[in-house]
Amino acid sequence: MAEQDPKARVCVVGAAGYAGAELCRYILGHPALELTMVTARAEAAVPLSTLYPGFLGLSDIVLEAPDPQEIARRADFVFLAVPHTAAFTLAPKLLAANVCVIDLSADFRLKDQSVYEEWYGVSHDAPELLAHAVYGLPELNRPALSVLAERHQKGEPVLVAAPGCYPTAAALALVPALQTSAWISSPVIVDAISGVSGAGRAASARTHFCHADESVEAYGVTRHRHTPEIAQSLAWAAGREVPLVFTPHLGPYKRGILATCYLSLVKGATTLSKLREIYEAHYGEAPLVELLSEGTQPNTASVAGSAKAQIALALDEATSTLVATCAIDNLGKGAAAQAIQCANVILGLPEETGLLRSLPPVV
Amino acid sequence: MAEQDPKARVCVVGAAGYAGAELCRYILGHPALELTMVTARAEAAVPLSTLYPGFLGLSDIVLEAPDPQEIARRADFVFLAVPHTAAFTLAPKLLAANVCVIDLSADFRLKDQSVYEEWYGVSHDAPELLAHAVYGLPELNRPALSVLAERHQKGEPVLVAAPGCYPTAAALALVPALQTSAWISSPVIVDAISGVSGAGRAASARTHFCHADESVEAYGVTRHRHTPEIAQSLAWAAGREVPLVFTPHLGPYKRGILATCYLSLVKGATTLSKLREIYEAHYGEAPLVELLSEGTQPNTASVAGSAKAQIALALDEATSTLVATCAIDNLGKGAAAQAIQCANVILGLPEETGLLRSLPPVV
Amino acid sequence: MAEQDPKARVCVVGAAGYAGAELCRYILGHPALELTMVTARAEAAVPLSTLYPGFLGLSDIVLEAPDPQEIARRADFVFLAVPHTAAFTLAPKLLAANVCVIDLSADFRLKDQSVYEEWYGVSHDAPELLAHAVYGLPELNRPALSVLAERHQKGEPVLVAAPGCYPTAAALALVPALQTSAWISSPVIVDAISGVSGAGRAASARTHFCHADESVEAYGVTRHRHTPEIAQSLAWAAGREVPLVFTPHLGPYKRGILATCYLSLVKGATTLSKLREIYEAHYGEAPLVELLSEGTQPNTASVAGSAKAQIALALDEATSTLVATCAIDNLGKGAAAQAIQCANVILGLPEETGLLRSLPPVV
Amino acid sequence: MAEQDPKARVCVVGAAGYAGAELCRYILGHPALELTMVTARAEAAVPLSTLYPGFLGLSDIVLEAPDPQEIARRADFVFLAVPHTAAFTLAPKLLAANVCVIDLSADFRLKDQSVYEEWYGVSHDAPELLAHAVYGLPELNRPALSVLAERHQKGEPVLVAAPGCYPTAAALALVPALQTSAWISSPVIVDAISGVSGAGRAASARTHFCHADESVEAYGVTRHRHTPEIAQSLAWAAGREVPLVFTPHLGPYKRGILATCYLSLVKGATTLSKLREIYEAHYGEAPLVELLSEGTQPNTASVAGSAKAQIALALDEATSTLVATCAIDNLGKGAAAQAIQCANVILGLPEETGLLRSLPPVV
Repeated sequence: MAEQDPKARVCVVGAAGYAGAELCRYILGHPALELTMVTARAEAAVPLSTLYPGFLGLSDIVLEAPDPQEIARRADFVFLAVPHTAAFTLAPKLLAANVCVIDLSADFRLKDQSVYEEWYGVSHDAPELLAHAVYGLPELNRPALSVLAERHQKGEPVLVAAPGCYPTAAALALVPALQTSAWISSPVIVDAISGVSGAGRAASARTHFCHADESVEAYGVTRHRHTPEIAQSLAWAAGREVPLVFTPHLGPYKRGILATCYLSLVKGATTLSKLREIYEAHYGEAPLVELLSEGTQPNTASVAGSAKAQIALALDEATSTLVATCAIDNLGKGAAAQAIQCANVILGLPEETGLLRSLPPVV
Repeated sequence: MAEQDPKARVCVVGAAGYAGAELCRYILGHPALELTMVTARAEAAVPLSTLYPGFLGLSDIVLEAPDPQEIARRADFVFLAVPHTAAFTLAPKLLAANVCVIDLSADFRLKDQSVYEEWYGVSHDAPELLAHAVYGLPELNRPALSVLAERHQKGEPVLVAAPGCYPTAAALALVPALQTSAWISSPVIVDAISGVSGAGRAASARTHFCHADESVEAYGVTRHRHTPEIAQSLAWAAGREVPLVFTPHLGPYKRGILATCYLSLVKGATTLSKLREIYEAHYGEAPLVELLSEGTQPNTASVAGSAKAQIALALDEATSTLVATCAIDNLGKGAAAQAIQCANVILGLPEETGLLRSLPPVV
Repeated sequence: MAEQDPKARVCVVGAAGYAGAELCRYILGHPALELTMVTARAEAAVPLSTLYPGFLGLSDIVLEAPDPQEIARRADFVFLAVPHTAAFTLAPKLLAANVCVIDLSADFRLKDQSVYEEWYGVSHDAPELLAHAVYGLPELNRPALSVLAERHQKGEPVLVAAPGCYPTAAALALVPALQTSAWISSPVIVDAISGVSGAGRAASARTHFCHADESVEAYGVTRHRHTPEIAQSLAWAAGREVPLVFTPHLGPYKRGILATCYLSLVKGATTLSKLREIYEAHYGEAPLVELLSEGTQPNTASVAGSAKAQIALALDEATSTLVATCAIDNLGKGAAAQAIQCANVILGLPEETGLLRSLPPVV
Repeated sequence: MAEQDPKARVCVVGAAGYAGAELCRYILGHPALELTMVTARAEAAVPLSTLYPGFLGLSDIVLEAPDPQEIARRADFVFLAVPHTAAFTLAPKLLAANVCVIDLSADFRLKDQSVYEEWYGVSHDAPELLAHAVYGLPELNRPALSVLAERHQKGEPVLVAAPGCYPTAAALALVPALQTSAWISSPVIVDAISGVSGAGRAASARTHFCHADESVEAYGVTRHRHTPEIAQSLAWAAGREVPLVFTPHLGPYKRGILATCYLSLVKGATTLSKLREIYEAHYGEAPLVELLSEGTQPNTASVAGSAKAQIALALDEATSTLVATCAIDNLGKGAAAQAIQCANVILGLPEETGLLRSLPPVV
């Protein structure tokens, strides 16, 4: 697709939520996408700019109830920014209507149905789609996404499972190192912190300002649902199972994840310089990933509101441990921007199209 | 100028500061401007992306020492994001070299040299330019700025005095009402609060996180230097002197000003509906100003990172007082975005060019 | 009462809310009060330290349902930290059972029943108590509170209407000046900002971290329910009606109110020095009020978690306007600490007893 | 010492800094300590309440230059809240004058002089005191501190090396588990985050509100100076060297550290219940440590402003990894409160004396 082609018509399902609003922000500023429909069950008939006043004067679009037939009539692409279980209900209908589906929920991320059912505590209603869904982390999975571009060009519908926010940060930090032979099968530690937007737009005791402000806490310790997804990505990279301990934290800020990841290395098997070369090679063509210069660490504020990931590497010589850090915006590269990036690949556009210049953040 | 014309070459002087960095952000994403030079005396030879890692991968530009001759050689437009007194030193040299100057300092805002010298405590070194400088608040002063566009087209240099952040918010909130006959000459109260970026990038006791966080305080009470600038704008709108009390506050957040302004009205002289009509008429063509629907109030987060102003009106019937509120981003409509808006007018472009879609905020 | 006397038994009704928890914090550290009962309808049987982990290891007390008879059996004093209308239901029963009632709701603050009913939109069920209730702002109303001390010593029940948070800050800032003849009947402007704890513990769109963080907004403009209460205090001080415009704001922090108040003065009638003398005389004996030295302004962080108020005065000579600022903790001097201060007066203790040294804040 | 004894006279050296101010706050509210002198080289003659307005009305004490002879004349106890190297200069003089010294700097924490000199990059000027200094973490080192109490009673001077903030959190989280045989010598991971007060009162690019706000970043990765101190405590507990990777982070809040610690266990060697029993036994008598109930995690806000530590344990069964989290206030249990706790032990007072009820936080 070239930029002068007619724009792809896009619907965002779940546009009232933070990831949905962020999708709208990117789509409204995208040169090849046109936002034709936004849905939100509980807020039907409410202008999007009433929920997010940052859209005032930029878009008059009004939320509607999510009707799959209507969506299929008015959109070529649909982004599902919905809770798990909602996606495996909607996706089959949309695919049947020949709509391309980019799902930001957890429903099609895990290839193993039983792992999904164990961690999410529900049975999967569309397991036949798991094999067809492509995991939407371009820096890990670009070839499979390119195949979708070919299928899309032939007019076939495609299904992308856009990754979770923590799994994105963890995979970007660790995948290149795991593709080497330098690591040891001690448990990988992923210790990460997210801003409060990661908890969603629902008001709760935990998202109350007076609870979250000035506070950091761990949550979901040893049992957060992103654990098997991270493990799956690490295993793909490593070519075998990777033992993993994942601890997410909630921090007193709006947007951004910092993942600090620890990987035990074979004593003397590599050096920081060699590791940096491997990462540079891996991310050399990736327009949304920056490897920081040695001695520099990423911070979440520098990627907040952006589509970028920033990565740093340090090597603890005494214990032969790689400390890889990755900062992303949980709503950007951790959700909406990454979903747009996948759409760009499918449309044959440069990955970063519409992601560097955009409307201002509304959350 | 049309968008396909060669881009205007732009230099930002003082690019290490927050307003300077915000200018770079807008210029780097602007379709008709090209950032050819950035200067900062104390940080010469440092890449801009070292100071602001949000620019990593987006610009490799390196800060230089500010040499007027070199600037004149490499730029058609220069933005001065410098402290007062630095601008009246630089501007004459740049204008003599036929460069268009958009000054974000206070040096050319006040038409009365003696008022400047009294409030800033220095003598003015380029008073002959005061009459030539055009106050760069397009919503108040569009005709004068349009004259600059004509002069620019003829190849003459122009000088714009871009307004201060508080004066922008106060003027946008009050100007339309002051142009009516409904108000009384009791003191106008402008009570405003700014995020910490308004205090600049210099580290100080006041900008220390542990001082500013979780705290609100008034400062410069009865003697803030923006007072005469606000008074000047109000007087222009009213056609006579307007008594004014201005109290700025510092709040625990990065970006954004909320000005809450109180104007005494003649009892029974007008209604909220009539006032809303006047504001709607005044701002009907203004692409960067939104008048909120009745009963809604602006918040600073909804304009942070944007070029927009949002305004609300309420009328206290019991005391016949108009309560007009205006939210802007102090670095956006209060500084950098407004300066770009002025440049757009001078270049004959739509005012909002490059201001709605932009790179993500780096501060 | 002397400190070695048996402690007064205290019940906090509504202890799950922020003001209730703050009351518990002060009572648990108070040398003459004993917390014997805490109630919260929705959280009965939950330990207080589950809601507020800061109490872990300091108190094992468990919330109960609020049963007036049980309260009367186990408490000599009861603090009502409840919404309006709940207090006029509970207070008569508690008073009939000879319990001293200190009500932190709005139910007994306004002396004029019709004003209450107009602003709160409900009819008052215990209007006969309005004349008996004493407004609990000791710095304004110490004589009336002292009369309660005498009645309490005789074994009679007493009813205190503890002030609202904004009215406390506004009255402390303005009362001494209004007791002079130097002011003019132009509208007094009270422009104030509160931290999010002022919005209560209920989770809502407005108290969501991602809404409140990094944002300031005005709310309830021209119609906030604290308006008539502020006006009542100002009228008491002035001896006549005082026209008032009150604008509250919500700021991105937990605790603290800053009120910036504007009072028009007769040109030449007074000086800042004279005004400072009047304030010093007024607050000379007040252990919880500090008048800051000239040129210094209070900030909310310096009073957060404390029982104190800090006040500053500035005089705008050009317009003869007094700018009086007052910072308090909305949960401290604006709620719980002030209620304890009233209890101290009634018990014949020094006003500040238990308020300077206390347990750490739990909100 | 009994509470009715004459109070011990106390001097705080470095009272202008955050830890120093926090010491003053606890001492001013302490029943057995009297603050007789506060020093700060750069702020001599400035009232402490000018730097920290929260002290207004509570203390009129004025900062002085730090003269060891004068300190020795006016104080029985001195707290050194100074940078490293300043303490090994001052301590010998104070000890020679028979003053008890509680040093909050790093100078006497590391028993191995060469480790100190390697990590701090300076030579140690008072190495002869290293053997005499007692590491002031009562929960780890109570017996040695009790010996100091005996020596103090005999009138001998004592020297306490109060622990660093991160080492306190890490040791409290891990020590009981390391005293069992259940752990494996894989690297222990200590991943911790601190509020900005941990960076001290000096204004810098890193402590600027606009840098720190809304941001999390790792710093000092693999080379933070608290690393050998943590390793030393872990080795004491384990009875042998413990390999360690420590990563500190800076978070957007004022006070509090959360340390998330990962310890590999022998597969099947223990259970969460057994581990909880061990921790309960270890901390059963510790008045300042709370082990949270299973499934609950500590947050920093609940300990901010307090002297407490809160600890939680979780066991990742799949990898046999203990995830132990500990929250403290870096200025409280991580600095000032712990130093007071040590002084209490030396004075023969209950450890928590003056630490539960105190003046409100001033930072």
